[in-house]
Amino acid sequence: MNAALGVTLVNGHSGNQVSTSERALHYGDGLFETIACHRGQPRWLPLHLQRLRQGCERLQIAFDAYDTLAEEIELLAAGQRRCIVKVIVSRGAATRRGYGPSGDERPTRIVSRHSWPREPEAAGLRVGISAVRLGSNALLAGLKHLNRLEQVLAQLSRPAGIDEVLMLSGAQQVISGSMANVFFADEGGLFTPDLCECGVEGVMRRVVLEAARGVPVIVRPVAADELPGVREAFLTNVRWGLRSVSVLDGRALHHDDYARQLRGLIDGGELLPGVER
Amino acid sequence: MNAALGVTLVNGHSGNQVSTSERALHYGDGLFETIACHRGQPRWLPLHLQRLRQGCERLQIAFDAYDTLAEEIELLAAGQRRCIVKVIVSRGAATRRGYGPSGDERPTRIVSRHSWPREPEAAGLRVGISAVRLGSNALLAGLKHLNRLEQVLAQLSRPAGIDEVLMLSGAQQVISGSMANVFFADEGGLFTPDLCECGVEGVMRRVVLEAARGVPVIVRPVAADELPGVREAFLTNVRWGLRSVSVLDGRALHHDDYARQLRGLIDGGELLPGVER
Repeated sequence: MNAALGVTLVNGHSGNQVSTSERALHYGDGLFETIACHRGQPRWLPLHLQRLRQGCERLQIAFDAYDTLAEEIELLAAGQRRCIVKVIVSRGAATRRGYGPSGDERPTRIVSRHSWPREPEAAGLRVGISAVRLGSNALLAGLKHLNRLEQVLAQLSRPAGIDEVLMLSGAQQVISGSMANVFFADEGGLFTPDLCECGVEGVMRRVVLEAARGVPVIVRPVAADELPGVREAFLTNVRWGLRSVSVLDGRALHHDDYARQLRGLIDGGELLPGVER
Repeated sequence: MNAALGVTLVNGHSGNQVSTSERALHYGDGLFETIACHRGQPRWLPLHLQRLRQGCERLQIAFDAYDTLAEEIELLAAGQRRCIVKVIVSRGAATRRGYGPSGDERPTRIVSRHSWPREPEAAGLRVGISAVRLGSNALLAGLKHLNRLEQVLAQLSRPAGIDEVLMLSGAQQVISGSMANVFFADEGGLFTPDLCECGVEGVMRRVVLEAARGVPVIVRPVAADELPGVREAFLTNVRWGLRSVSVLDGRALHHDDYARQLRGLIDGGELLPGVER
């Protein structure tokens, strides 16, 4: 195994090619996970595998090599101070043409290691509102599936000087960032958008909800016109952990009490990259 | 060039592998075309290339090899009695991780030849209503992009004995089939759903709209509760041409006057596979 960053395994074999028949390529017919690895260890691996399993069940993808996949993730993380390991599970190479799977496909897993990206350097994130809306579909909501053109368009149109954009549904509900979940606090306490119609149920979102048992978080629809009343906001993903928002849609936020309290609750803070540095 | 069906060209080279870094694989970040070829010739090729060009412009994909692509399509169609040539244009191999393109990607084109599929044998199509809804997104509407999980789910749940399913938006508007556009007629005349919020602007739909200058077609939102008043319906794609619906949501339809008239108008009918047989 080459110790350099950039290694890829396709169904366990070192290589960087897949079949042109992969349904992930033709239709985005598959799922992915992005796993933060620190000191040679993947973080929150059971949660990633659990979400992947739920996604495969909902999309009827017959993937079952979870133990092998976990070993491959650990292999790629081993010896790295920090890195990202990305997993793609495609329904597999098509066994016939057309949208409908035959049921005979054999899932393809692609596990790749990537260098830790450069992060926004400011203490707080500057967050805008994307003009790109998220389509609603309860059957896909929550899944980390491969149909991500909306996020691509949101990033393409992200203004310079803005670290991340919030994305709304067509019904003007705030759903998430383009690559992170979002939590807000107002006078009434902490809340985060429900993801019944769109959005991804992030692993770090789940960690926060678990950690926050002593800090009630209300999961509910969040209308865009509530944003002016927000006094604290933070974004979550496994790379960022909890990152406070310093500017929300042009308005400075001066509070980070909930984010600090929650970071402390999550494993004494030691599992969060932001605390680790 | 191997004369057998199943040939694939990747950026002009014979082969059936692409990079695991392709953005089409990671995000569905690309477009496709499915081209019906008869007697060695791709049909409606200028319309396919025009739609691809519009899609690349809207998604800011810097593809410009249209002449080369046309030659490759013609090469794969040559000598075949009838076949399908499928084109995928991916934004290219990622030059960095994450949703946002760097702008340095070089688009990848995949051109593959497939055998003509077995068609439903009955004279008319039996059409149901899918429980899978189409998410609305005006920025993606009309494009033949690679985010097709909704169509995959619609095909996965299509009942036995049903040839195709109509898909509705979340607002209960009829948009299209899962792999075809749809036209309806009632006492007031012919109409077809507008595709401002979701759906694919099919090449055969466009051919029908062009042909129908003497047969006015109203393009407008179509509510699901209008279906009981429909007396004729037909589906269009480049493989089917115009195929009449014999059963719509459990109700037999006995008319095909518009479909017959339009088939006659479209190049004397000779370009339509259904007429050719």
